[in-house]
Amino acid sequence: MANNIYDLIIIGGGPAGMTAGIYAGYQKLKTLLITKNFGGQINRKAVTIENYPGLGEISGAELIKSFEKHLKRFPVEILNDTVVEVKKENENFTVLTGEGKKEFQAKAVIVASGADPRPLEVLGEKEFIGRGVSYCVTCDGPLFQNKKVAVIGGGNAGLEAAIFLAQWAKKIYILEFLPQLPATPVHIQKVKNLDKVEIITNVEIKEIKGKEFVEALVYQGRDSNELKTLEIDGIFIEIGSMPATNFVKDLVDFNEKDEIIVNPYTAETKTPGLFAAGDVDNVLYKQIVIACGEGAKAAISAIKYLRS
Amino acid sequence: MANNIYDLIIIGGGPAGMTAGIYAGYQKLKTLLITKNFGGQINRKAVTIENYPGLGEISGAELIKSFEKHLKRFPVEILNDTVVEVKKENENFTVLTGEGKKEFQAKAVIVASGADPRPLEVLGEKEFIGRGVSYCVTCDGPLFQNKKVAVIGGGNAGLEAAIFLAQWAKKIYILEFLPQLPATPVHIQKVKNLDKVEIITNVEIKEIKGKEFVEALVYQGRDSNELKTLEIDGIFIEIGSMPATNFVKDLVDFNEKDEIIVNPYTAETKTPGLFAAGDVDNVLYKQIVIACGEGAKAAISAIKYLRS
Repeated sequence: MANNIYDLIIIGGGPAGMTAGIYAGYQKLKTLLITKNFGGQINRKAVTIENYPGLGEISGAELIKSFEKHLKRFPVEILNDTVVEVKKENENFTVLTGEGKKEFQAKAVIVASGADPRPLEVLGEKEFIGRGVSYCVTCDGPLFQNKKVAVIGGGNAGLEAAIFLAQWAKKIYILEFLPQLPATPVHIQKVKNLDKVEIITNVEIKEIKGKEFVEALVYQGRDSNELKTLEIDGIFIEIGSMPATNFVKDLVDFNEKDEIIVNPYTAETKTPGLFAAGDVDNVLYKQIVIACGEGAKAAISAIKYLRS
Repeated sequence: MANNIYDLIIIGGGPAGMTAGIYAGYQKLKTLLITKNFGGQINRKAVTIENYPGLGEISGAELIKSFEKHLKRFPVEILNDTVVEVKKENENFTVLTGEGKKEFQAKAVIVASGADPRPLEVLGEKEFIGRGVSYCVTCDGPLFQNKKVAVIGGGNAGLEAAIFLAQWAKKIYILEFLPQLPATPVHIQKVKNLDKVEIITNVEIKEIKGKEFVEALVYQGRDSNELKTLEIDGIFIEIGSMPATNFVKDLVDFNEKDEIIVNPYTAETKTPGLFAAGDVDNVLYKQIVIACGEGAKAAISAIKYLRS
């Protein structure tokens, strides 16, 4: 195993991880990138991407493809797996994947595991996952051809989900906890141009109901306290995300949002040789090009660490 | 004038400024971008760019073109001019350009003016600018077909300049102050594969000599103290850069490298409504994709500032 040690293991195949891979590959580090799939959260997001500089208006799938093609120009090994633990022993890191049966060693590690969708935590939610409850419009949107759906969350992600769903669903409700939609004016205008979208603000979701599949949503007016039932076939939950950090919790510090705290100039965590980049860390704005910039910072710091 | 006030003026058309423009344009801010030309320092840099994620291997000119095309999808006004001063009066900014005769007003400003080449400050340097002394291999490289040139500076930029010049020049000397080249192993290997390149380390440049044009370079061994003369036709100076900040000096704080100090999470300077991004600020690593990420941060912060 000792002969087989990697210079760098990158955990995550979203924009931050892929950028780190491009930088490490270009610098000829012996690099392993571990990810379930390329693209990270872009896979779950809808609508075209218009603000990744240089690529114009592009679908998420096309964006991921151009990153993947770029990464594969370099001799970076790719493993499709899930990391379950990262340990540091002496100077090296051990990364365990899958059921914990495979293990890999590296001199440095970049955590770029992004974020998972935040659950609503209401009655019926877990029960109906895959049977009407979804966290991924791009995966499940087409299943709701001519059906009625609800999007929970009136931020940009929720509105983008609604716009995306409008190509299939016959009716879309957007439910938002706050009295006003917290999305940008541009997003709100786009949604208001769609006749089949209805916006319900200032409400709290109480329960998801159904038999085999989702049939209804119960919500409560936050001022009126009145309970209402909405008959729908599907529910898309878009209320934010949670950093994916379980496997690394003993080696880093977290902020109040459970994000890994890094030095914003170098992407260093508190453990020497361990770096974090992208939506998993405490970078303030979650954007593709910002995650890429942070991935580049982490890779450059890892290269400096390995060569020092 | 008051009716004509911009939401945002972006100063600089490099990766950071263009990204800020894309973000501001997408959000429909009334935006003016002022730059002498698009691309910033990429215009002066040689060799292909291999680490801007998603674009693969691409020339600097092509990269700038794809950014420019992307920016022009949005209604951002472009002014080809040089900013000479930024003032804040009451809540608004006044930006003076050219000879100070034109002025523009905005509620927020992003400084993304990048950096200018750092001069050597030796005898003959200023005198021979444009007559053999150059800070821009892409501009002036082709003039040295079958000639002998020196590149001053053995970092990545110097080595990239040498590789680029190898397509024209018949002999290239790289002169470096330090005992070893401070470039990455990948860069050093590329240069060592070129027969016509000769590396001279541990020397200090003393003088640039010539009549009408550059004819020779005088350097001194740092250990031997011996003075030597190198007959050359051109000198490319690649010893780093200086942030371009003269026009804004009263509104911001600087670090020891004369970079504008910003909040690394938000790109805010000490003046509310004034943001800075890219090589002009104290971001540690100077890379295209990092500058883009910082440009996006500055634009998002400006949008939040304008809407608060």
